Amino acid sequence: MSCDYLINNKEMARQNGIVQPLLTDLYQITMAYAYWKSGKVDDTAVFDLFFRTNPFQGEFTIFAGLEECLKFLENFHYSDSDIEYLVQTLPPNIEPEFFEYLKDLTCKDIKLSAIEEGSVVFPRVPLLRVEGPLIITQLLETTLLTLVNFASLMATNAARYRMVAGKNVSLLEFGLRRAQGPDGGLSASKYSYIGGFDGTSNVLAGKMFNIPVKGTHAHSFVTSFSTLDDLHTAVLLHAETQKQCNLLELAVEWRRRLSAVIDVSPEEASDGELAALISYAQAFPSGFLALVDTYDVKRSGLLNFCAVALALNDCGYRAVGIRIDSGDLAYLSVLARDTFHQVAEKFQLPWFNHLTIVASNDINEETILSLHEQGHAIDCFGIGTHLVTCQRQPALGCVYKLVEINGQPRIKLSQDVGKVTIPGHKEAYRLFGADGHALIDLLQRSSEPAPEVGQKVLCRHPFQESKRAYVIPSKVEHLYKIYWKEGRICTFPKPLVEVRERVQSSLRTLRQDIKRNLNPTPYKVAVSDDLYTFIHELWLQNAPIGELS
Amino acid sequence: MSCDYLINNKEMARQNGIVQPLLTDLYQITMAYAYWKSGKVDDTAVFDLFFRTNPFQGEFTIFAGLEECLKFLENFHYSDSDIEYLVQTLPPNIEPEFFEYLKDLTCKDIKLSAIEEGSVVFPRVPLLRVEGPLIITQLLETTLLTLVNFASLMATNAARYRMVAGKNVSLLEFGLRRAQGPDGGLSASKYSYIGGFDGTSNVLAGKMFNIPVKGTHAHSFVTSFSTLDDLHTAVLLHAETQKQCNLLELAVEWRRRLSAVIDVSPEEASDGELAALISYAQAFPSGFLALVDTYDVKRSGLLNFCAVALALNDCGYRAVGIRIDSGDLAYLSVLARDTFHQVAEKFQLPWFNHLTIVASNDINEETILSLHEQGHAIDCFGIGTHLVTCQRQPALGCVYKLVEINGQPRIKLSQDVGKVTIPGHKEAYRLFGADGHALIDLLQRSSEPAPEVGQKVLCRHPFQESKRAYVIPSKVEHLYKIYWKEGRICTFPKPLVEVRERVQSSLRTLRQDIKRNLNPTPYKVAVSDDLYTFIHELWLQNAPIGELS
Repeated sequence: MSCDYLINNKEMARQNGIVQPLLTDLYQITMAYAYWKSGKVDDTAVFDLFFRTNPFQGEFTIFAGLEECLKFLENFHYSDSDIEYLVQTLPPNIEPEFFEYLKDLTCKDIKLSAIEEGSVVFPRVPLLRVEGPLIITQLLETTLLTLVNFASLMATNAARYRMVAGKNVSLLEFGLRRAQGPDGGLSASKYSYIGGFDGTSNVLAGKMFNIPVKGTHAHSFVTSFSTLDDLHTAVLLHAETQKQCNLLELAVEWRRRLSAVIDVSPEEASDGELAALISYAQAFPSGFLALVDTYDVKRSGLLNFCAVALALNDCGYRAVGIRIDSGDLAYLSVLARDTFHQVAEKFQLPWFNHLTIVASNDINEETILSLHEQGHAIDCFGIGTHLVTCQRQPALGCVYKLVEINGQPRIKLSQDVGKVTIPGHKEAYRLFGADGHALIDLLQRSSEPAPEVGQKVLCRHPFQESKRAYVIPSKVEHLYKIYWKEGRICTFPKPLVEVRERVQSSLRTLRQDIKRNLNPTPYKVAVSDDLYTFIHELWLQNAPIGELS
Repeated sequence: MSCDYLINNKEMARQNGIVQPLLTDLYQITMAYAYWKSGKVDDTAVFDLFFRTNPFQGEFTIFAGLEECLKFLENFHYSDSDIEYLVQTLPPNIEPEFFEYLKDLTCKDIKLSAIEEGSVVFPRVPLLRVEGPLIITQLLETTLLTLVNFASLMATNAARYRMVAGKNVSLLEFGLRRAQGPDGGLSASKYSYIGGFDGTSNVLAGKMFNIPVKGTHAHSFVTSFSTLDDLHTAVLLHAETQKQCNLLELAVEWRRRLSAVIDVSPEEASDGELAALISYAQAFPSGFLALVDTYDVKRSGLLNFCAVALALNDCGYRAVGIRIDSGDLAYLSVLARDTFHQVAEKFQLPWFNHLTIVASNDINEETILSLHEQGHAIDCFGIGTHLVTCQRQPALGCVYKLVEINGQPRIKLSQDVGKVTIPGHKEAYRLFGADGHALIDLLQRSSEPAPEVGQKVLCRHPFQESKRAYVIPSKVEHLYKIYWKEGRICTFPKPLVEVRERVQSSLRTLRQDIKRNLNPTPYKVAVSDDLYTFIHELWLQNAPIGELS
């Protein structure tokens, strides 16, 4: 049944049409040929997929993209036309048997272990561990990186927005038009929902991933009406009595009465805007949320909105609220809230106090923090460009490194210590303190026994000898599960809403100082004493002879 | 035939599975319903798609994405499952006839005019003009923006890299693993090729768009070999004689001889690396381009590469070159070139002077400029993250604004003058000087006669009364062609290579000071005197009554 869950959506399959073995760098295929030609078909390898630095100057990352990786493994197969293209593209002297080999290649001999999708993760701790024949493990590199990098970056970005916005504000993703390609937009919708957004404007994302979709109207809707004569009909049926109400007359009358209350002359307000709002209210009497900044929030939009909302009230409907898409959002939202309070009091309509105020103009983390400092009355942010393009840092630098071949560990040395890889087949554990907070992530050699609750564990910095400490964990979490082996998914990824909950529960295990926006404290990632010794012995064996670098 | 050209590629169709009417913001559909319900089914509208600021602090933009827009119009159709989803998603009181209306909706009544894809374009000049029934023109907004925004941003970014790199350097796009989603990666490959790159590492992009694909091997290939014993065979057949050569023995012997020439001891060099390079050379004897920085460029990689290259030479093959992926690229490339010169001279192999040096580590526009200043010997840059994510500015801000409805002009006013729209159905002309350079883009009302060669034209700043000048053009280019009308493509978009050529020929018409990297001169966009008067009269009619803002 769970296999069905992954492929039962036609659109999802269509989208994943491009996630196929050729979605890779050519060098994976040239390397595959060189491996094949040099008799390495039966060599086995272990690759780690990890990143070296948290994005957005933060100290945590949300891991996402695992489900897509599993779908990729499931569908891995070179089609005849793929093979034909490769025959044309690779040099003419490639042995034809290699293409026969590729034709039959699947992920049946791969074992994929991973951290649970939606978990907070940290630099150097592998997110995926891929084991199997050297050639196929190598061929998976680029696509797995593509699937994990942007998904994790996006989920992390969304989680950061959620943290700065606080729990009481709704967050909507509005970025499709500015996303990096159509699929960049879909990924943004999906992973911002996972990261803690409440919905998206992207209808296809709603359909494909069952994410709530939201939206009302644009400025062009308002400007498409010039005068009250542009209204096709003035009528709306009463919600309960079904009697015809003249919404236009009611709204015009309310605008006249309101002008005294909120000190704006009806002559200042746009009639085209009033006509547009009436028309929108006729179409969505129970979902009336109006854009109020087409002409002037203060002198036109608010007055027209309140007039239509009160007219709707006469017809038995409650308006939802307003959206402001320009100007000083702190000032305008407070102005709107004050107006709503005045109307609520004057006309004895307490629900008017609680109308929703949506804001949506070029918002980023800093804008939200600044609005919080200034004071505002916004209930919901619609966020586009900065969210979906991850403007502050548009790429996560996950890498995919060979750590073992035929049972022998491999280390990649570098003059930059940060780029030295941690060799061998490893396990990762998260150690928790008595207060429930995560203390440290510990990498061990797979041959070592797992750390035990209540037992002290020596945790060492992987590269600095003097940095070490004993930790006595109150809880130990083994971070890896096997998700794929013997040609099929063996742990089914969780549905989107559960991954979304996992993000929040996982974040709650982090101390606040690690999550804060300004100068967060780094979370520690350590290696066991055994792994430390192993790394440094191997380093020494592989160290170049010659000058000290 | 040309219709075939657009859809004859199965992968292209699969990719475009997600470019469908639901790939839009929900508010387009709620607005459509409000329009439909308010009797605006027969209203006609004109929308302009344009941007307000050039990206990357530059003064030009490359327009791209038109072909994708036309494919979108061609395939625009709500499927039964789309309708079913909308029925579930929209409020329950939506009239069922609206869904019948949507079911039959196509782009048969749309007229799309556009600037030629690959042209240099400027702020405020519409890239697309979309005319037709209000509802369908409105429904196209988000998807057209998505298709034009990233494509144009990416092509512009690539064109900027091409300009700073100069004509004599090859540029390869290596960004798939860091791209924003799989399709973000494909779009990046396609539009960086259009912008002036020479190829990509992305195999699927190569297959789908017929772009040259490039790539050799990664560090993991090198680290998968530990010693010379890891070599499966030492043999390579001679290119001409087909006699067996012992490539291993030859390479080891050359390494010994070379060590004196380039002053590096063979003991310092990695045997695993030598084994890997021999193995790669056996697989690709005519295409031997080796990564030389896995251990140490100076003390291992260069020596091993030269040894294998000379051994290949003994077998009748010429090596291609090296790739450096870390460290000081200026210094290392010059060191490599010096080494090649020494080897060329010592062993009388002049072609060794011209071996290709590829560099590929986190390169951006600034790195290339800085390398040019320092002096380097790089022939080819492989560029990833900064190129494909457009790190310097990850979104272009195209907007889609209503400028006319039922023959009546519409203006969107704003307290920010830069956001005021230029109303009405307009034409755009590019006026050229006697030296062949573009002087100015001129927007006119469509009712005005086109500017004429040799006749003076009054060109005015759209919003500043005092800024105006007469221009006498030596050439006048009408910027719009109709690409879509009566339900089909009427001007077929050009093949990729021609769009790519268009980018370079279009850029050549711009003065150098407009294109330069630092403080470029803005290119002028003007309106005719008639359009100026029209804008300001309309502005006055729509100006709010009340305080001066």
